[in-house]
Amino acid sequence: MNQPTLTDALIIGAGPVGLFQVFELGLLEIKSHVIDSLPAVGGQCIELYPDKPIYDIPAIPVCTGRELTNNLLKQIEPFAPQFHLGQEVASLERQGDGRFLVSTSQGNQFLSKTVFVAAGVGAFQPRTLKLEGIEAFEGKQLFYHVNDPERFTDKQIVICGGGDSALDWALHLVGKAKSVTLLHRRDDFKATPKAIGEMRRLCAKQKMALLIGQISSFETMHGRLCALQVTDIDGLSQTIPVDDLLVFFGLSPKLGPIADWGLTIDRKQITVDTEKFQTNIPGIYAVGDINIYPGKKKLILSGFHEAALAAFAAAAYLQPEKQIPLQYTTTSPKLHKALGVSSPNIE
Amino acid sequence: MNQPTLTDALIIGAGPVGLFQVFELGLLEIKSHVIDSLPAVGGQCIELYPDKPIYDIPAIPVCTGRELTNNLLKQIEPFAPQFHLGQEVASLERQGDGRFLVSTSQGNQFLSKTVFVAAGVGAFQPRTLKLEGIEAFEGKQLFYHVNDPERFTDKQIVICGGGDSALDWALHLVGKAKSVTLLHRRDDFKATPKAIGEMRRLCAKQKMALLIGQISSFETMHGRLCALQVTDIDGLSQTIPVDDLLVFFGLSPKLGPIADWGLTIDRKQITVDTEKFQTNIPGIYAVGDINIYPGKKKLILSGFHEAALAAFAAAAYLQPEKQIPLQYTTTSPKLHKALGVSSPNIE
Repeated sequence: MNQPTLTDALIIGAGPVGLFQVFELGLLEIKSHVIDSLPAVGGQCIELYPDKPIYDIPAIPVCTGRELTNNLLKQIEPFAPQFHLGQEVASLERQGDGRFLVSTSQGNQFLSKTVFVAAGVGAFQPRTLKLEGIEAFEGKQLFYHVNDPERFTDKQIVICGGGDSALDWALHLVGKAKSVTLLHRRDDFKATPKAIGEMRRLCAKQKMALLIGQISSFETMHGRLCALQVTDIDGLSQTIPVDDLLVFFGLSPKLGPIADWGLTIDRKQITVDTEKFQTNIPGIYAVGDINIYPGKKKLILSGFHEAALAAFAAAAYLQPEKQIPLQYTTTSPKLHKALGVSSPNIE
Repeated sequence: MNQPTLTDALIIGAGPVGLFQVFELGLLEIKSHVIDSLPAVGGQCIELYPDKPIYDIPAIPVCTGRELTNNLLKQIEPFAPQFHLGQEVASLERQGDGRFLVSTSQGNQFLSKTVFVAAGVGAFQPRTLKLEGIEAFEGKQLFYHVNDPERFTDKQIVICGGGDSALDWALHLVGKAKSVTLLHRRDDFKATPKAIGEMRRLCAKQKMALLIGQISSFETMHGRLCALQVTDIDGLSQTIPVDDLLVFFGLSPKLGPIADWGLTIDRKQITVDTEKFQTNIPGIYAVGDINIYPGKKKLILSGFHEAALAAFAAAAYLQPEKQIPLQYTTTSPKLHKALGVSSPNIE
């Protein structure tokens, strides 16, 4: 394992509030590293509603989740945050010197003086197939995401799901895999009309198969998954051979290991004060949808405000002897320097 | 006096936070009236830095005070707030039924169920000339703003000040008034180079006069102001005749009558809780730079968050029997209707 990355601030969550946390820390000359379980920044805004309009961001009459994310990325550019995406935080341990040793699911380690939990509703993780014993095949013959499409060449593939991911991978593997069967619980798909049309055409040509039903059991041979029993809505079953099973049931958020750090948690939310947005562990702050305090509303706007106050609190925590004055980006030459913009001459 | 205007919410202050208060109340179906002492909306953003860049509004990498104001005006358009500008709040009295009777300096009256003080650093008012007894001539021969330029025709005018207003009125009145004397404490002007150049040219041509010094006393005849004694930095004095005196010393914010309403005030700021942003008087909320609570930072962003939470608190105060759910502008058909935007079909 490599040496841990040393940092003053580690932000868990690259949604809009985590991104703005970078900005508020940056103004106070605190550099950040950012971790997110998703492969891209933007959090729920990108994962759940990238193209839907948002109307309640102050002074932005309307924007999409994608535009909001892009604007925030532009805003934090001067602070060059380092992103560590596609990995969840696996553990956090307080060290003797008060710093936090944080490890991720990819084996990255960070030694940080402060931690900002901006994890929204939790780490987005694939919804799993509920079938007793099937978890033993995960990563071997059962996959919730595709890292290596080549491995499916000449295999008998069954793909579960009715959304974009399921259809896109089915279409991608037709002609490469030995057989492709799309399995969905009903004949109704949440995907682009183009993908649905293409899927229907390929089924009509018998280049792939569509099965409506659910997996009721599975069969193994020599310890390997070899067949699935699929049952339809009328209770009729059939058995289909399978080499590899791909499941795309969408993502579901999980608080995950954060629940085990000794933070005070109230109904899956982390309790904070409204002065510092600090948790019960000094040096760990919680901002955005994941925190709870009297009056809390899960608004992006509130997360932005919380990030600002948490940044000031962290600056005081990191340098207790130093006065942290409030300066304005409109007038402060120091902030202009931090932002990389020119300061107008004094009038 | 007319009948008071009946309203659910009265917002004092049309700066960015007062404007966004309209929005947050509007989403909860509460209509607002807005009062401001300045003749235009935008508050400090427009009065102090209309063209200077602001960098710390979330998801807006850079904007001027004017752009921020215009964006907010666009955002609150669906809620058609009614503005009452150029007037200060003069008095507030709680009525027997719990409503607040508010009167302005222009004699307008409002009977409102809730009041939102978004007054920033206070009502901007002209800095006055400090000279014992001179206040008796205010509105007769001493003016801090010009309502009727015609009245200065053929008069001997003295204009005090070194900024844009002083120079602009001096230039405007040359050729109309009998004489124009610009009086400033030092030979250094904060005005556009064009106005300064024009003033110097007119002085060289003896179309107007420039005097450097300060008014040390005044003379009267038959109860009217007739001359000013002006003393320069070396203590030398001269007496100049005057019919009308115009003073442009800039604007200075004053908490004003708000200080007399029985609100708990801590160093010119109104104490609020961080759940409702309510003052010690139920139904009166304070948001933005005028409030104080543990951790308070005078950021526009914080005022936006406070306005959101105060709106929810006011909705509960106005209809205590009703549940006020948090809805999202991205998904709520009810909010889409309030915003006047079309709701996408349910997917």
